[in-house]
Formats: sequence, structure tokens, C-alpha cells
Amino acid sequence: MGLDEVASKPHEALAAHLADKMDAVNTLIRARMASRHAPRIPEVTAHLVEAGGKRLRPLLTLASADMCGYSGDYDVHLAATVEFIHTATLLHDDVVDESAQRRGRPTANLLYDNKSSVLVGDYLFARAFQLMVETGSLRVLDILANASATIAEGEVLQLSAARDLRTDESIYLQVVRGKTAALFSAATEVGGVIAGAPEDQVQALFDYGDALGVAFQIVDDLLDYEGDAKATGKNVGDDFRERKLTLPVIKAVAAASDEERTFWKRCIEKGDQRDGDLEHALSLLHTHGALDQTRADAMAWVAKARVSLETLPAHPVRDMLGGLADYVVARIN
Amino acid sequence: MGLDEVASKPHEALAAHLADKMDAVNTLIRARMASRHAPRIPEVTAHLVEAGGKRLRPLLTLASADMCGYSGDYDVHLAATVEFIHTATLLHDDVVDESAQRRGRPTANLLYDNKSSVLVGDYLFARAFQLMVETGSLRVLDILANASATIAEGEVLQLSAARDLRTDESIYLQVVRGKTAALFSAATEVGGVIAGAPEDQVQALFDYGDALGVAFQIVDDLLDYEGDAKATGKNVGDDFRERKLTLPVIKAVAAASDEERTFWKRCIEKGDQRDGDLEHALSLLHTHGALDQTRADAMAWVAKARVSLETLPAHPVRDMLGGLADYVVARIN
Repeated sequence: MGLDEVASKPHEALAAHLADKMDAVNTLIRARMASRHAPRIPEVTAHLVEAGGKRLRPLLTLASADMCGYSGDYDVHLAATVEFIHTATLLHDDVVDESAQRRGRPTANLLYDNKSSVLVGDYLFARAFQLMVETGSLRVLDILANASATIAEGEVLQLSAARDLRTDESIYLQVVRGKTAALFSAATEVGGVIAGAPEDQVQALFDYGDALGVAFQIVDDLLDYEGDAKATGKNVGDDFRERKLTLPVIKAVAAASDEERTFWKRCIEKGDQRDGDLEHALSLLHTHGALDQTRADAMAWVAKARVSLETLPAHPVRDMLGGLADYVVARIN
Repeated sequence: MGLDEVASKPHEALAAHLADKMDAVNTLIRARMASRHAPRIPEVTAHLVEAGGKRLRPLLTLASADMCGYSGDYDVHLAATVEFIHTATLLHDDVVDESAQRRGRPTANLLYDNKSSVLVGDYLFARAFQLMVETGSLRVLDILANASATIAEGEVLQLSAARDLRTDESIYLQVVRGKTAALFSAATEVGGVIAGAPEDQVQALFDYGDALGVAFQIVDDLLDYEGDAKATGKNVGDDFRERKLTLPVIKAVAAASDEERTFWKRCIEKGDQRDGDLEHALSLLHTHGALDQTRADAMAWVAKARVSLETLPAHPVRDMLGGLADYVVARIN
């Protein structure tokens, strides 16, 4: 791979640098996913765990530990832990409430029933918990226990914030910190902790993961309105149809005229959506510059992530993490 | 309270003996259930946590620690932990799959949507995890991580074992060990561990909890076919209607004639149930003595629980735990 390619695909550069460790992570994931007693478990998880996701979160843990000079094996345990937690939350996210079923939304859980998704997700949480106990580090356990609570709180907060036009940017940020950034920052922090890094470096790793996670989610929410369906695998307007108040809409609502507010109320709060509404929503997002402002916010969080890295000593992996931050927003530039 | 009453209500005797500790558990539960960020959480849990359940599992932890001479405060943390795990599994159990929704089964989750039940359950799991990390005991964490995995495996196994006439007594026992006994035995075991009890006593506490949990579930499954709806809060035949293969039916199927087997296949595997089927099922259970045999099995597990207690030193709480074992089966005698 030429230097240019490495620079343009920092995710692959990190993965290549940590290839042996990632192999060990994948082996551990497959081994711990298996269940002697309940063969249905790997059936349900296989399409998630084997689907060749980017494994971004385990990479963050391995990279953080590597950069801080860790030479043991527990980074592999912790990387598998965060991937299990991530997979469990995906399974639980896909459980639909009744109204969503009525709208016939196609989600992963349709492959199986709601109940399997819930129980297999619980199994993965428990497996994650076992893996981290094996590291014997109470501090790591504390970090991941707190992250788990923050994730669940963020998800519940999102439920009540959805369909409510009073949801503002500070509530949005709280939701995003919970549902996405908490696991990113825990992934980087435990990498530093297991390596015995000094406190200022552990803090820097936390801050990097936090800012990266927020940027990642903002990009995701932006792409929902302006992405290329082929590249993102999502249809434009999914969030609109599901009446989620994400950053672009929050910005447009804040700048809305009375008439526009009535439109948002009807579509998001009342869920009365008609032909042409998505197109009108998109035009309002453009009119108020909501998409450009959202893009600028994502860039600001990436800049914050890069600043956090400056506290850390010079290291090739540090540069790759900087590149990874740019890569996260490359999709929207 | 006279001695006779204490003897006839061993659950109340234990609760009275541990009243101060139980107050501390209830206070801790309320404090940790709250969420600064997501006020919906206590709304969803309140009807479960405040509903005045027997708090059997936390009592087991407090009793075990007390009997082993523990004088610290972490027994309260661990008692709250097992109650949180129990409540979380109740919330997740109540998530219905689509077919159950079609049958219009009334479950607790109808108060809220599936998604709230799942996410608030996750929150309680995370809170449980935080509480046990606070005890600083890696051994306790190991026990509860393993129990969590066993519970989830048991629940998933139950999904595939339901509606399948090949489910035999050994699969049933595996399911019961997972979904019920694993938390009973973890509750008693961690009580002994936190008290620093000798290994043979910790093992005896585990064995007691395990046998008590199995007996408890068998009684529950028996009452589903012969209980008094007013006393149990369940309608006779719920398990039949939900096509669950519990011990009474497993015994009747094992003894079935070809014609009877066809009946069970139609009702349980195909789910084609008609007027009079429940009555016919009950008559088959009687004909083959399946209910009496199930009752005998429950009594045998209670005897096993009592035998386990003999390894422990004489102690008033030990006697109360023996009484509690009898109390569990008193409902079916």
C-alpha cells in the first residue's frame, strides 16, 4: 500500500498496524459468542458480528493501549468487550415498538423476533462483562459500568426527546454523548488505563474518544438528510419518517417561521406525513443553512478530537488516530 | 408475632430479622434507580420496584451474609444488585414477539412500549453492574457475570425449547437453572463470599440457592395448571396458551399415547387451540399423574435445599432459610 493510500484511508492504516491484535480480537469474539446451551445465539449474532463491520471501537482500544506502550494481552479482551457491548446495543436498538411495527419499518430484528434480539443482546452484555472481569482491573470495570449506564440513559432520553419539538441542541448533545460517544470514550480510556498510562494521557484519550464519538454521530445524522443511499446504506429521510429530532432539524426548527413550525409540528410531533413532506423538509433545511451549520459542528468536534491528541507523546499511532478523526468527517466533505 | 405465626410465615420471619438491612436496600434501590438525564426511567420501573414484591432474592443475600458473620455494608449493595438484575430480566421478559402481540396477551410492557422496557432494563443492568463494582470484590463480579450469562442463555434456550415436543426434563432443568436458579444461587453465594466464609460454606450456600430456585420455578409451573387464580395472580393455563413446555406437560407427553401425542402436537407445536383443549390437557395431566409427579419433584428439590444447609453452622438464620424452603412448596400442598 502506498503512502498516499494509507493517508487517504487512515482506518485501514490503523487496522494494518494492528492486524495481529485484531485477528486475536476476532478469534476471541467468535469463541465467546458461542453458547454450549443455546445454539440460537450465534445464529442471531452472526449477521452482526461477522458482517465485516469496521470494528472501529475495538481498534480504538487497541490503538490507545499500543500508543501507551502496553505489552500484555488484556487489550484484546477489552477490544472484544467494547465490540460485544456495541453489538448488544445494536440488537436492542432494533427492537421495535408497536407504532414502528405498524409503519412496517424493516429492521434487523425482522430476521428474528423481538424477544430473541433482546435476550441475545443480554447474553452479549453478560459475555462482555465476563471478559472485562478477567482483566482483573477494577478501574476498567468502573469505567465500563459507568459507560453502560450512560449508554442506556442516552437511549431512554432519546425516546422521550423524539417527537418533541422542545428538544434543543443541549438535549441532543446529551443523547449523542450517551448513545454513541460514551462507548467511544470508554474504548480509548480503558486502552490507556490497561497500559498504566499517566492520568493526563488517560484524560486525553477519553477526550479524543468523546469528541470523535460526537462527530461520528453528527455525521451520521447529517448523512441521513444528504447522504448517497448507495454509500451509506440508509435511505435519505429515515430519521424524518421516524420522527427523530436530530441536529439538522433542531437547527431548522430553531429558525422556523410560525408556518414552518406548524409544518414540523404536524410531521414530527403528530406524525401526520404526506407526499412531498420530506422534500419540503429538505428545502427548509437548506433555506436555514441547517445542513451547513451541522457540517460545521461536526468539523468543530473533529478539531477538538485532534487537539486532545496533542497532550499525547509523538507516536505513529497518534498520527493515525488524527487521520481517523479526519476520515470520520471525510464522508460529508 | 407468636412463634406459630413465625413458623408458618418464614418469609416474614427472615424479613423481620433483617428489617434494618432491608430498609437500607430499599433506600439504595430508590436512589440508584433515579436518573438525572432520563426521568422516564423511574416511571417505567416504579410499578415493578415499588409494587411490594417479596424481595426474595435480596433477602437471600442479606441472610447468607448475616449467617456468615458479615458486619460491613456491601451486603446491601449486593442485595440491591440482585434485585436490579431480577427487575431487568422481568422487563426484558415482558417484551413480546409479534405472535404474542397478535394473541393480544396482556403484559406489563403494554403500559409502555417494547423499546422502553428494553432500554430501561439495560439501564438497570448497568446500575447493578456499578453497584457490584463498588464492592471492590473481583470474585463477586465473577460470580455475577457468570450468573448473568447463564440467565441469558437459559432465556434463549427457553425460546427454542418452547413449542417443541422434543423438549425433555433435562432441557427443562437447564432452562430453569438459567432463568431462575442462577440468580438464586448467585444471591446466596455472594452473601457468603462478601462475608469471607470458608469455601465449604460458600458451596453450601450456592447449593441451597440452586435447589431453592429450581423448586421455586417448578412450583410456579405447577401452579399454572392447578393454582387458584386469585392467589397466584395468573390464570390457569397461561403456559398452555403460550405453548410453553413446562414440567407437567413434559411428563404427560412422555407418557402419551399416539392419539394424545397428536393432541399435544396440535396444541403446542402447531398452536391450533380450540374450545375445550385446556380442559382436555388438564385431564391428560391428571390421567398420567403428571401433576403429582411434578409436585414430588418440587418436594425433592426442597429436601435437597435443606440438606445443603446442614453443612452450615447452627444459626437462627439457617433455620429461617430452612423454613423458607418449606414455604416455597407450601403453596402446592
